[in-house]
Amino acid sequence: MNFELSAELCALRDRTRQFIAEQVIPYENDERQSHHGPSEALRRELVAKAQAAGLLTPHASPEMGGLGLSHIAKAVVFEEAGYSWLGPTALNIHAPDEGNIHLMEEVATPAQKERWLRPQVAGQTRSCFAMTEPSPGAGADPSMLTTTAVRDGDDYLINGVKWFITGAEGADYAIIMARMEDGSATMFLSDMDRPEIILERNMDAMDACFTGGHGVLRFDNLRIPATDVLGEVGKGFRYAQVRLAPARLTHCMRWLGQARRAHDAALAYTRRRQAFGKPLAEHEGVGFMLADNDMDLHTARLHIWHTAWLLDQGEKCNFESSRAKVVCSEAQWRVVDRSVQMLGGQGVTGESPVMRIFTDMRAFRIYDGPSEVHRWSMARKLVHMADKAAEGA
Amino acid sequence: MNFELSAELCALRDRTRQFIAEQVIPYENDERQSHHGPSEALRRELVAKAQAAGLLTPHASPEMGGLGLSHIAKAVVFEEAGYSWLGPTALNIHAPDEGNIHLMEEVATPAQKERWLRPQVAGQTRSCFAMTEPSPGAGADPSMLTTTAVRDGDDYLINGVKWFITGAEGADYAIIMARMEDGSATMFLSDMDRPEIILERNMDAMDACFTGGHGVLRFDNLRIPATDVLGEVGKGFRYAQVRLAPARLTHCMRWLGQARRAHDAALAYTRRRQAFGKPLAEHEGVGFMLADNDMDLHTARLHIWHTAWLLDQGEKCNFESSRAKVVCSEAQWRVVDRSVQMLGGQGVTGESPVMRIFTDMRAFRIYDGPSEVHRWSMARKLVHMADKAAEGA
Amino acid sequence: MNFELSAELCALRDRTRQFIAEQVIPYENDERQSHHGPSEALRRELVAKAQAAGLLTPHASPEMGGLGLSHIAKAVVFEEAGYSWLGPTALNIHAPDEGNIHLMEEVATPAQKERWLRPQVAGQTRSCFAMTEPSPGAGADPSMLTTTAVRDGDDYLINGVKWFITGAEGADYAIIMARMEDGSATMFLSDMDRPEIILERNMDAMDACFTGGHGVLRFDNLRIPATDVLGEVGKGFRYAQVRLAPARLTHCMRWLGQARRAHDAALAYTRRRQAFGKPLAEHEGVGFMLADNDMDLHTARLHIWHTAWLLDQGEKCNFESSRAKVVCSEAQWRVVDRSVQMLGGQGVTGESPVMRIFTDMRAFRIYDGPSEVHRWSMARKLVHMADKAAEGA
Amino acid sequence: MNFELSAELCALRDRTRQFIAEQVIPYENDERQSHHGPSEALRRELVAKAQAAGLLTPHASPEMGGLGLSHIAKAVVFEEAGYSWLGPTALNIHAPDEGNIHLMEEVATPAQKERWLRPQVAGQTRSCFAMTEPSPGAGADPSMLTTTAVRDGDDYLINGVKWFITGAEGADYAIIMARMEDGSATMFLSDMDRPEIILERNMDAMDACFTGGHGVLRFDNLRIPATDVLGEVGKGFRYAQVRLAPARLTHCMRWLGQARRAHDAALAYTRRRQAFGKPLAEHEGVGFMLADNDMDLHTARLHIWHTAWLLDQGEKCNFESSRAKVVCSEAQWRVVDRSVQMLGGQGVTGESPVMRIFTDMRAFRIYDGPSEVHRWSMARKLVHMADKAAEGA
Repeated sequence: MNFELSAELCALRDRTRQFIAEQVIPYENDERQSHHGPSEALRRELVAKAQAAGLLTPHASPEMGGLGLSHIAKAVVFEEAGYSWLGPTALNIHAPDEGNIHLMEEVATPAQKERWLRPQVAGQTRSCFAMTEPSPGAGADPSMLTTTAVRDGDDYLINGVKWFITGAEGADYAIIMARMEDGSATMFLSDMDRPEIILERNMDAMDACFTGGHGVLRFDNLRIPATDVLGEVGKGFRYAQVRLAPARLTHCMRWLGQARRAHDAALAYTRRRQAFGKPLAEHEGVGFMLADNDMDLHTARLHIWHTAWLLDQGEKCNFESSRAKVVCSEAQWRVVDRSVQMLGGQGVTGESPVMRIFTDMRAFRIYDGPSEVHRWSMARKLVHMADKAAEGA
Repeated sequence: MNFELSAELCALRDRTRQFIAEQVIPYENDERQSHHGPSEALRRELVAKAQAAGLLTPHASPEMGGLGLSHIAKAVVFEEAGYSWLGPTALNIHAPDEGNIHLMEEVATPAQKERWLRPQVAGQTRSCFAMTEPSPGAGADPSMLTTTAVRDGDDYLINGVKWFITGAEGADYAIIMARMEDGSATMFLSDMDRPEIILERNMDAMDACFTGGHGVLRFDNLRIPATDVLGEVGKGFRYAQVRLAPARLTHCMRWLGQARRAHDAALAYTRRRQAFGKPLAEHEGVGFMLADNDMDLHTARLHIWHTAWLLDQGEKCNFESSRAKVVCSEAQWRVVDRSVQMLGGQGVTGESPVMRIFTDMRAFRIYDGPSEVHRWSMARKLVHMADKAAEGA
Repeated sequence: MNFELSAELCALRDRTRQFIAEQVIPYENDERQSHHGPSEALRRELVAKAQAAGLLTPHASPEMGGLGLSHIAKAVVFEEAGYSWLGPTALNIHAPDEGNIHLMEEVATPAQKERWLRPQVAGQTRSCFAMTEPSPGAGADPSMLTTTAVRDGDDYLINGVKWFITGAEGADYAIIMARMEDGSATMFLSDMDRPEIILERNMDAMDACFTGGHGVLRFDNLRIPATDVLGEVGKGFRYAQVRLAPARLTHCMRWLGQARRAHDAALAYTRRRQAFGKPLAEHEGVGFMLADNDMDLHTARLHIWHTAWLLDQGEKCNFESSRAKVVCSEAQWRVVDRSVQMLGGQGVTGESPVMRIFTDMRAFRIYDGPSEVHRWSMARKLVHMADKAAEGA
Repeated sequence: MNFELSAELCALRDRTRQFIAEQVIPYENDERQSHHGPSEALRRELVAKAQAAGLLTPHASPEMGGLGLSHIAKAVVFEEAGYSWLGPTALNIHAPDEGNIHLMEEVATPAQKERWLRPQVAGQTRSCFAMTEPSPGAGADPSMLTTTAVRDGDDYLINGVKWFITGAEGADYAIIMARMEDGSATMFLSDMDRPEIILERNMDAMDACFTGGHGVLRFDNLRIPATDVLGEVGKGFRYAQVRLAPARLTHCMRWLGQARRAHDAALAYTRRRQAFGKPLAEHEGVGFMLADNDMDLHTARLHIWHTAWLLDQGEKCNFESSRAKVVCSEAQWRVVDRSVQMLGGQGVTGESPVMRIFTDMRAFRIYDGPSEVHRWSMARKLVHMADKAAEGA
């Protein structure tokens, strides 16, 4: 066992940290941000800086123009990028693009990659992932998928409504999950500038860190040629898992950066602000919160590292990524909530960046599977493994 | 012991509940609201409705134009009003006016009451309470007060900066806390339309439920005649306690209404939304959250009732109102956080009112004394009482 | 609403408090105690003292020889009695006798009362309640009852095994729950000195406060005449509810006394013991625990009082007693766990009474329905009430 | 970064696991155990088995007769040994001997090692560590040391009282911490069979897993020659740190084994026991507890591994071992508490081994520094590091 990072990775980490501190954080008060994230102009400006710094899309394969980072390397670099809410956008590792890039690398045909993936890795385009649907459609339970794909000659006709589609507004292409006539699911690729794709509205969300916000999309007889199926017909649910296990983990990595940022802000404030005769940080009650933050941050980091290493060994990590997702989303949330509390009035206003982190992060305990769904899936696996062990014995 | 409410109070409760449901909630999507709360025009429209319904400023004395509610009666009525975030504004029981009205009733001279209190009870004016200061001034520790009042002939000259002054923008008068040359504190009354009172800016806060938002005020040689001292010179800290103990409790009451609203929204959603083969509410994991919500709501209500009853008996309730504040702010927060979780994507977007309640409520664990300050003050009291009992024995 | 206790009740409370302090606590180190509770000799000595003090079996009806306490009065007196783990035995209000006495008063015939109840109220006898069974029988789910009662002439023949039967060893009579041929359940009364009732063993339990411990009983063709049926045939499950709702609450009352005792021990110790330059209680981290204890104790007390008052109004309180049971068992447990922590090494050894309270109390979160079963039953009720309200609207 | 264990270590782990399962667990019901742990006869029988299996005292250096395990290797092997409460005794890695062996290896002279360490590594003797004192002496705050050592010719005379001295009864030698006339502290070695060492009593503790229990020792003019000073005079506090940082971590390792055992027992039971129509484990509420257990166990393991690796790199790990101690003692406790809850009545009786684990483990949150002391020490370090970073910047 060895927790040492290679000198190369340490250098990349330090370079990323410096890039975020010097070139990204100064943009945090840039006015080209709204409740639907940074504007496209701001995004392009940040991307250009990351490109100049040699940090753009680092998780993509070298063939496509990335740095080909391992999962462990992503753990280290994404945490650094996540220190600013603009960092993931700058490095082109924001959701859903980061996960879409991973999925495209795994499943897309060479032609599909040239058409959609290469410009995306270059930071020129954005994408969205159209899976979640309004009630009674697919939410925490993906099997409830209602959007349909019906074969029509060499094409498929897609109909349905999707929502919580992150980055939909302004996306160049979409990966669309739809139900086939036999009940299986298939993923389809489509440019977004089609009249049959209607962005009905952008949702009013608590978070403001995702470029393009979260849209409601309607597919109205959207015709997609069979060549634009992503991977094989009928394997949609399997590909969703291919995408989701590592995507869950990269969320954990980025949010770890944000949680550390919140803790650092609270630590700085409580060392400075006096109350009842001494700095806040010298009050035991506050000190305990600082210690709890450190414990939670380190717990999250260790779960991320371990799961990333397993992914690097070729494990699927459905169980481990569920576990890491629950542990991290809850531990990181506690860190941010405690940081708000330590900051007092500063924590609930724009006087500190932590208010922003607080409202940005809450949804993380819900998306990519709420804690409850992951706990239940873990429980079934634990019982299943015990059943198998009992049979073996 | 008797938990029964009088028939009169039940009728008032039901009338308030109906008023909120039928006449206030329909305004919740009214566009005359911003991050700094409802506009003055919207406030006046709501106040007119409450007046027509006979529910305006019910906690004020009948002499001043109110209903003269006891603390227990307030517990019941304010919870109902709090069911909508516009309810407290409609009934003119929002912070800080509600507490200011109480303080003015207790301490102001007849002339002061006629000038400032009577129009406020009629819903025609608003007020603010200028105590909290930026670092290194008075925050959780009020003894760090830095705003000064210096005697100058028959007047006082006030200088200093205040922030987190709720309702400052648009307020008609202010109660200002300032430090005297001898280190004691005094409260002063002043109209707000004075050039020496500068609203430097309105803060960017997480909550959006307080009319006028939270302002930063500067007093630049503000001249106040001795007749506008509120109560006696040098008794500012004592009056702050007179104001704070019941004011803490009315926060608990109003937020109990909001927490109940969040729970009701989650309960309605989970009864309707299907996942994994049955309604969410029929999943044990969700059911447990509903049960926990009910426990927390009832716990909060019982603490409120008990403390209100003690206040009605003439107790000061410094200890009990601290305890109720911690219990309620934390229990109600858990209710809202769980409700967000049960609502999933709905909970973190404007699809449900609960997102709004979540961001509105977080600061309640901080203002009027953060949980940590109240816990410590309770601890000292517990030790002190035990010391005295030990001496007696 | 009125939280005042009558002068009479206050006097009874003070008298009980004094009795426990002066006449019961001195027995706590008496050697006539084992893992299966106080010996019969010790019990009789304590009962005689309570009788002399006019405090014996205070919840029984005056007709049977008790004081006929209301539920509210029980809340007050039982908390005082619970301050010592020997208190409930002394006052003859320990489980399961306290609940059995209540059930007998409600359901037994005059002849049954004379034979079994009167001597029990006088403190001369003890009883047990034989419901719980080993797997796959009735545990948290009472419907899994496997002990059978078969009609045979004018009698019933009972066969089956029970466990966790508190007080079985040394009990004079038992209330036995058995399944009828039609699937319903019936309660039977039987003397314990019958050869067909075999006490197979006394279980090795974590708690040591229940007289007689927890036994495993086997009924081997136990013949019971129809005249010894308790109440009506087939109404066993209904009577179990009659017994359980108030019995749950009296557990809460007695354990509240024990939790308060633990808190008092921790408060005394932390005021005295120095560390890092000052008494433990002057460390914020310890002070916060003292404050949390006070909050939890008061929360438990308020839930008990409210539910007791509802029972006094004639409500069945299935929901409310479930809620109170979960709230109290969890809040009181937190109090005791924190008290152990504050006491440090004292808390995990016989140097303080709190170790004993800790091991005695853990099972309270399990018996009379584990927290999980109550949460689920509460959830179903909340959903059911919401469904009905929706239908009505 | 690499989480892989060497093939050699995996083999040792599997061998230890098998040894515990086949040769140690069968002794768990052996009657030669009391509240003061296994008897010396039982201990010797277990030690002989470990010796035969080549697993005795594996952490000692090969020179002294051990296997010279690294900290990482200890993490793996001690968790396995801890799966049975008799495992640490069998492998001679129980507290306090395990830590004493480590300290002796680091500090003792060759002559001291031959006299005291070699027979101990061979499992022939036991030792105790006499530091903690009754109030007002050294407890959580070691600086309050009151036992004195006064120079007298070539000897020292030791006077004082110690308590919570684990393993005192039956120990062959003691490491004694005493205060010098200049206020510094020194460690002394002494055989235990001296009339000036009086075992006043063995304390009545909640745990029953430590051989020899926890004794109260009095030193009555105990004369110790200067050659029996352990290390250098005046360096007692420093050596205490040398001993404590890794000793804290080995506690975490052993208790991780016990926590896993509790979880396994709960998992097995809930897969088997039916309630409300299906096995307990198929109820979401129970499944969530199983998942939480898995998360807590993995969190504890990751913290142990990481800190062990740092120790292997030569780091002192005062901060990290504090952090691991708090995280592990609290996470493992939650696991055991949840396991009790899932086991219901089984969990609070000797029907399952988990009751024993529950009462054995509670003190772990207190000894070797209560959670509160570690949190505070972590907080000061976090502030100190931030202060230094701020100075550097």
